[in-house]
Parts: sequence; C-alpha cells; structure tokens
Amino acid sequence: MVAARTSLSEIVKTFEDLQDEITSGLEALDGEGRFHEDRWLREKGGGGRTRILLNGQVFEKAGVAFSHVSGPLPEAVAAGMNAPAGTAFDATGVSIVIHPSSPRLPIIHMNIRYFCMEGGNEWFGGGIDLTPIYLNPEDAHFFHAEIRKVCDRYSVEFYPKYKKWCDEYFYIKHRKETRGIGGVFFDHLTSQSPEERQLNFEFTRALGRAFVPIYAELINRHRNEPFTEREKQFQLLRRSRYVEFNLVYDRGTRFGLETDGRIESIMMSMPPQANWTYNYQPEKGSPEAFTLEMLRPTDWLKG
Amino acid sequence: MVAARTSLSEIVKTFEDLQDEITSGLEALDGEGRFHEDRWLREKGGGGRTRILLNGQVFEKAGVAFSHVSGPLPEAVAAGMNAPAGTAFDATGVSIVIHPSSPRLPIIHMNIRYFCMEGGNEWFGGGIDLTPIYLNPEDAHFFHAEIRKVCDRYSVEFYPKYKKWCDEYFYIKHRKETRGIGGVFFDHLTSQSPEERQLNFEFTRALGRAFVPIYAELINRHRNEPFTEREKQFQLLRRSRYVEFNLVYDRGTRFGLETDGRIESIMMSMPPQANWTYNYQPEKGSPEAFTLEMLRPTDWLKG
Repeated sequence: MVAARTSLSEIVKTFEDLQDEITSGLEALDGEGRFHEDRWLREKGGGGRTRILLNGQVFEKAGVAFSHVSGPLPEAVAAGMNAPAGTAFDATGVSIVIHPSSPRLPIIHMNIRYFCMEGGNEWFGGGIDLTPIYLNPEDAHFFHAEIRKVCDRYSVEFYPKYKKWCDEYFYIKHRKETRGIGGVFFDHLTSQSPEERQLNFEFTRALGRAFVPIYAELINRHRNEPFTEREKQFQLLRRSRYVEFNLVYDRGTRFGLETDGRIESIMMSMPPQANWTYNYQPEKGSPEAFTLEMLRPTDWLKG
Repeated sequence: MVAARTSLSEIVKTFEDLQDEITSGLEALDGEGRFHEDRWLREKGGGGRTRILLNGQVFEKAGVAFSHVSGPLPEAVAAGMNAPAGTAFDATGVSIVIHPSSPRLPIIHMNIRYFCMEGGNEWFGGGIDLTPIYLNPEDAHFFHAEIRKVCDRYSVEFYPKYKKWCDEYFYIKHRKETRGIGGVFFDHLTSQSPEERQLNFEFTRALGRAFVPIYAELINRHRNEPFTEREKQFQLLRRSRYVEFNLVYDRGTRFGLETDGRIESIMMSMPPQANWTYNYQPEKGSPEAFTLEMLRPTDWLKG
C-alpha cells in the first residue's frame, strides 16, 4: 500500500481548520470571551490570521495564530540553511499561547509547523508544553501521560526523545530553571520515505487536535478554585520569567524579531502583565519554594 | 605639565564614592524611601554592592549598583577581544536604572565604567539617557542642554558624537522606535596620551556627578502633578518596551546573562510591573500618539 502524499495545500488547510477548531474549543471552555481576528498580509508573500481573546471568564489573554508565508527565503535565513539566497519557500503553522487570569491555572503553549523549500527539503516541527504557576504533580502526571498517549500512537520513540528535547529547549539558563514542566518539542523532522512523511504529518496534526481536550481537563479541574493575593503576585513573577525566556532564548520569537515579522503576532505570547521583584526568595517549605525547586527536568510518569 | 596618572584603585574609589553620593542624593530627592544594600562576591574575583530602593514616595524602584570584578577574562569574552584566554582584567562601574511610580516622571538610566587588562589595554565607557513615558519637548531640551554642557567642558566633539551613538544604541529595531529621547552613550574610549586618558576619566566622572542634579530638576518639575488611570496604563505599556529593549538588545544585559553574572543585579533594570497590550493603537492626536511619533532620533537643542 502506498502512503498518500499530503500536498502543501492540504497541510495548509489542515492547519487553518485546526485554528478554527481550537478557537471554537477555547471559546466554549472560557464560556464568555470571544476571539477577535486580525488578518494580515506579508509584503513578500503570504500572510496570516491572528486571533486574540482578551479578558474572558477564564482566559486573560489567549492567542491562536495561523500563518502561511511564502516567497524567496530571507537572506539571513537562507545563509543559516546553506541554501542559495532567493530559494522559494513555504512555511505554515499554528501557534498558541494562553495566559489564564487565575494563578491556579497553567499557562500553555502549543505550536505545529511545516516548512518546505525549492529543491524538496521539507520538515515538520512542533510541540506542546505547560507552565503551571504552582506546580501540581497530579496535573503534571496527567499532562505528560496524555501527551505520551498521542506520541505512542505514532512511535514509542517519540515521547522520550521529544520530552527530553523539550526540557532542553525551554530552559532559562540564567535562572537555572525550566520554563515550566515541559511536554514535547521537535523540530526539523525530515522523512526518509513517503510513509514516514505521512506519519510525521499525522503525528503533528494529532498533537494539534489533542491540545483542547488536554488543556480543558486542566482548566476544569481548577477553574473554580479561589485564590489569594499572594498567589496572584507569584503568578505575575512567574510570568516575568516567561517573558525572559521568550525574549532572550525563544528561537521563534528571536527569528521573528530579526526578520521583521508582524510584531503584534510575535508579541502575542507576552503576558498581559508581568512583575519583577528584586531578589525574590520564597518562604521555606511554601508552595512557591516547592514550585521553584521542581522547575528542572523531571520524569513525571515515573512511579 | 605632566597629567596625573589616575590609578585603578583611584578609579574604583571614585566610582564607589559616586555610588554613595548618588544614593544619598536620590534618597533626599525621594524624601521617604531608603536604599537596601546587597554586597556580593564573584567566585572568580571581585564583587559589588547592589543598592535598591523600593516603593518610595517618588521612586517605585531605583537601582544603583557598583561593581569591581577581576580575575582571568572569561573565555567567551577573551575570544571577542582577540585576547589570550586567561588574560587578567579589571572592570569597574556604576549602573543606575530608576522607575518612578508616576507616569509624569521619566525612567532614567546612567552607567559609567572602566575596563583594563593585562598588557595595558584599557578604556572608559558610559552614558546617560532618558525614557519619558510622555514626551515633553521642554524637558527633552533641558536634559540634552545639561548633558551637552558637561560634554563641552571636555570636548565640543563629545556631545554630537555620543548623542548620535546613543540614538543608534537605544533603538528598538522591531518597534521601529527609540527607547526614549536618548542622551549620550560611549564605549571603548581608549586614549592616545596620558592627557587624553585623564580627560576621558574626568569626563566619565563628570557625567556621573551630573546625574543627580539633572534628574532632580526633572523630578521636581513634575512630582506633584496628578495623573490618570489612562496615563498609568500607558506607563505600563512603555515599560514593556523598556523590557523588550533590555532583554533583546542591551549588550550589558546579554553579556551578564551569557557570562553567568549575578542575576539579581542584571535584572535590577527591570520595571516592577510591565504590561503588554495586544495591538495598542493610540488615539489620533493624543499625547500617547505624539510620544510614539517622537520616539526617533531628534535634535532636541535645535531652534
């Protein structure tokens, strides 16, 4: 049996549909907020639909962006890929960052992407990772177990490999802590055969489809919990670490800034508010101290 | 007449004394807040005194840091300077960032520094620049005129040259705007003669001494002005641009992060709170629109 060769336009359509499914799912989950859409065109080819929900019942800021850009490879990018300047490319993806209002609810990030260029080079990339304000081992176990299930449907090698990659990628070197509890991350996933290509595509899509149900479970577990001012302050501090990661290390953000991407779509990931507290030291034995201690690569499925 | 050769220890002492003068001056200006000091040691040599004033009458967060670090040049730094790894160096400086509570008052930054290494290479560096929340042309004129006076006492070439350098340095490329209204900035100021070295030292010191009186005038002009919630919100947005500059572009910050500097001293420059508003568009003809339009290199002394 020959694997179907999913075309570029089918991949683009899949990603667009995923954005629709996800924004509908998140609106239902929030129960009140609605996404506002900005359509934009890229001068040198392609464009996108950036959707933002602000000040909902649960989500203070939720961004779900679809884009499909094309044209000749920007010079800086071509150089990094050892490709001749001007090589034609297509890049498409869906990117999500959600900042809930309540410190009892975790920040989440998901991204799936596909890249191809003249000459036949192509790859898939993506990932999903969770940044709880307060670490909750049961939630961490649930999150990783669900993601592992998705991975295992395609290859039992995926979860361990991409989980490790995620821990390494979302590491805030100067704080000596991970951004959150990780998840999976993969990039430049090339294929040696049509079958493998189809598997990589379906895996990437499955991750996108798993996003809403997994996040909904975590939200519903904790959405009605009251919280204190101290917890709110800790959320604002944890968000500033999120800002630090994104502006200092995140390749997607830095790539966007360097290549003059649509600034409002790049900065969509920023929290609505972040606080920096000089020399913050959590109280010994507190949930804040526990969280900061646990922000390191951990096997959440063990035991 | 032979120029005095100011020794390393005299430079260090000058900078330490400047920190004392500046923190006393700022406490007097604030009228209520007091600096808290953290002394720290660097594992490989030297250390510093980081002083922070929080939640004063005028200043929400003011940081004034002195440091004098020494030892063998870190590998990455040595490579960048074409120096053999392990070359001995001394670096000393005073760094200031102040975030007032009121949006009627400008953020200010000042830094003076001296670097020398085995073999005789040495230089001075520094600068002072202002980031108003709301642009006020009279204040901008005053600020630049005062700085120019300091510069002109040493060389009439300094102000135009270092003003331009400042505009180029404090540019937020991805926003296509300057961080504020600039000031002066200079780096790697080497000397061809003992006289020139003494001049560069005295100029650097003079800039440090001019800091408090210039800033005090700006604070006193506006400290009693009431402000609105809309102005406060604009301040929080302008502060997020400050964060973006510091984390994405500032060489001092990035150098500190890459060389594993004392994180709390590096992050001293961060505002206590910053907000990101998706796709903020100022009202046409508003003071916010005026400010954003004016955030580009401008000759404030003209006319």
